Amino acid sequence: MDITVAIDAMGGDHGTHVTIPAALKALEADSSLNIVLVGLSDAIEAELKANKAVTGPRLRIHHASELVTMDESPQGALKNKKDSSMRVAINLVKSGEANACVSAGNTGALMATARFVLKTLPGIDRPAIAGVFPSQKGRTYILDLGANADCTAEQLLQFAVMGSMLVSCVEHKENPTVGLLNIGVEDIKGNEVVKKTAELLRASHLNFYGNVEGNDIFKGTTDVVVCDGFVGNVALKASEGLVQMMGRFLTQEFKRNWLTKLMGLACMPVLKAFKKRMDPRRYNGASFLGLRGIVVKSHGGADSFSFLNAIHTAVEESRNGVLNRISQQLEIEHMQSKDMAEQHANNSTLTGTTSTGTTLTSLGMENE
Amino acid sequence: MDITVAIDAMGGDHGTHVTIPAALKALEADSSLNIVLVGLSDAIEAELKANKAVTGPRLRIHHASELVTMDESPQGALKNKKDSSMRVAINLVKSGEANACVSAGNTGALMATARFVLKTLPGIDRPAIAGVFPSQKGRTYILDLGANADCTAEQLLQFAVMGSMLVSCVEHKENPTVGLLNIGVEDIKGNEVVKKTAELLRASHLNFYGNVEGNDIFKGTTDVVVCDGFVGNVALKASEGLVQMMGRFLTQEFKRNWLTKLMGLACMPVLKAFKKRMDPRRYNGASFLGLRGIVVKSHGGADSFSFLNAIHTAVEESRNGVLNRISQQLEIEHMQSKDMAEQHANNSTLTGTTSTGTTLTSLGMENE
Repeated sequence: MDITVAIDAMGGDHGTHVTIPAALKALEADSSLNIVLVGLSDAIEAELKANKAVTGPRLRIHHASELVTMDESPQGALKNKKDSSMRVAINLVKSGEANACVSAGNTGALMATARFVLKTLPGIDRPAIAGVFPSQKGRTYILDLGANADCTAEQLLQFAVMGSMLVSCVEHKENPTVGLLNIGVEDIKGNEVVKKTAELLRASHLNFYGNVEGNDIFKGTTDVVVCDGFVGNVALKASEGLVQMMGRFLTQEFKRNWLTKLMGLACMPVLKAFKKRMDPRRYNGASFLGLRGIVVKSHGGADSFSFLNAIHTAVEESRNGVLNRISQQLEIEHMQSKDMAEQHANNSTLTGTTSTGTTLTSLGMENE
Repeated sequence: MDITVAIDAMGGDHGTHVTIPAALKALEADSSLNIVLVGLSDAIEAELKANKAVTGPRLRIHHASELVTMDESPQGALKNKKDSSMRVAINLVKSGEANACVSAGNTGALMATARFVLKTLPGIDRPAIAGVFPSQKGRTYILDLGANADCTAEQLLQFAVMGSMLVSCVEHKENPTVGLLNIGVEDIKGNEVVKKTAELLRASHLNFYGNVEGNDIFKGTTDVVVCDGFVGNVALKASEGLVQMMGRFLTQEFKRNWLTKLMGLACMPVLKAFKKRMDPRRYNGASFLGLRGIVVKSHGGADSFSFLNAIHTAVEESRNGVLNRISQQLEIEHMQSKDMAEQHANNSTLTGTTSTGTTLTSLGMENE
């Protein structure tokens, strides 16, 4: 199946110097992939030339006259940059000209624009950001990483559905395990939202493992870890900070004197192998889930190897129909909650009380 | 000033085999320290004998006939173990026979018992657990680490006061900086509780730095980082899991073949220096703050070097009067909020509305 990805060629700290070499590598590796480079056509053409590449049926340029800067406010970008490379790339997804878009631009602006242009899927209250962490067993997908500081139990259930379908598409894993991030594994632990989420997850058709704790992210206890955007963002950034600190400590110890420097040289191959294993570039590409279109956010500082991984994620999501899978699974969960609500209503009638239904029965109502 | 510390000699995974050697080292290092070993006197005497030590004016035994196990429920321990080494050690703090107590026992049981026996300080709604993380600049103190899954802004302000006073006592740092853990540094970021907390902190007499993010914990941006117990616990456990994973990856790379093993041997001194720097034993000793007595929790699996650090924390808190400092600072903040409420009331009278005061004006009412 042919896939077309729209790339915000101007986004990120390095713009076309990173996005275009990555796009060329992606095309080389995948013969059923087409790419639309969106941005200032002069700049794109110059970079293509520098890479001795030309446009053709599989590689097109779509001119967009504006840029969203990294420090622009989401509302400002939404209001004032209607012909930005970011916005136009998303428009191509909306119009069906592209299956997905990838941008290394300003996260807030990208989310606001994607949400405005694409709208959320039926049954989704708010989109979430899913990212990948390395684990002792492979990779752990976590959501939300910061789009929603406060979440209801119903939203966390939606995140679980989205994360689960993402992993099945991108990692080709059927029925991935889902863990609920908590401060203890026992059912009585955590706050009210988490306890209610656990109930919803137990009643769902997902492969719910149960509560997990912070260390389970890196143990690889489950394929997906669900949490609100506040907790997810703190876990992500604390991990980044810790890796950076440990890297600095290790470097300092090896640079202490000429003898330790010599030791560093002696074990360089091992240190390189270790560094490669922890390389954040391998985990680049956060998925914006819950929208009526596929949007993948690359780290702003990504190099072309790193950006290539983000493109790869967008391709896998497109090829394996993540949007359909999410919608179908939401429908299943919706049916279930409808049944539960009806049963509850019947029981209530018998006991003389009335049912207000569950919040889940409103799934599918929004944006329709 | 002479300090007496009551030690729950039976607590933790290794009981007297760890607590007593640590107690003996602590006495040796500090001539104005007295220790009361609480627990089964036979077991304590046997361990003292094994260490060629005897009781005396600076080292006493206080018999306690029961033990709280590591998997006992907090309520079970509270109800059924009235003569446990943990409970009796806390009783000694309550009666004034000890300035502080240290236990490596069951965290939930220790918190429940400490709260029941000692009660909270005036102006404190709920006690919190403060722990130490290594940072690029030294040490970062974080609270709460899991005692309170949900917190109000007023509670987070109380945590900030407690953490600030803890650092001034234990690190001998006047006016330590306080950061509020958030998902961005801008004022508009975060949920409602965090935004309100930032307002209270800006109006307080603490050295409030502003919002910090997860990576700032390890950068050492501020001396104290304040967050609710859910977020703090996830950050703590995620960090533990990440360090464990990185350690395992590094070991695996060095054990790959005979050549890499040789490289490992060659740079062993550097790896040891690195490991020492990250050694969690150096950061052992979480302070239970907000109680009318000093309680320090050691990691259950602590060895004697590690447990010694927990004793050291208890001694520093006692010697530098952490309880008085917390009370005084709360009083200052209370006065401020009272002034603010009065001013607000006066303004309201002028405009014809009535004031409901602020929640902070209720500080000092509980437990009095």
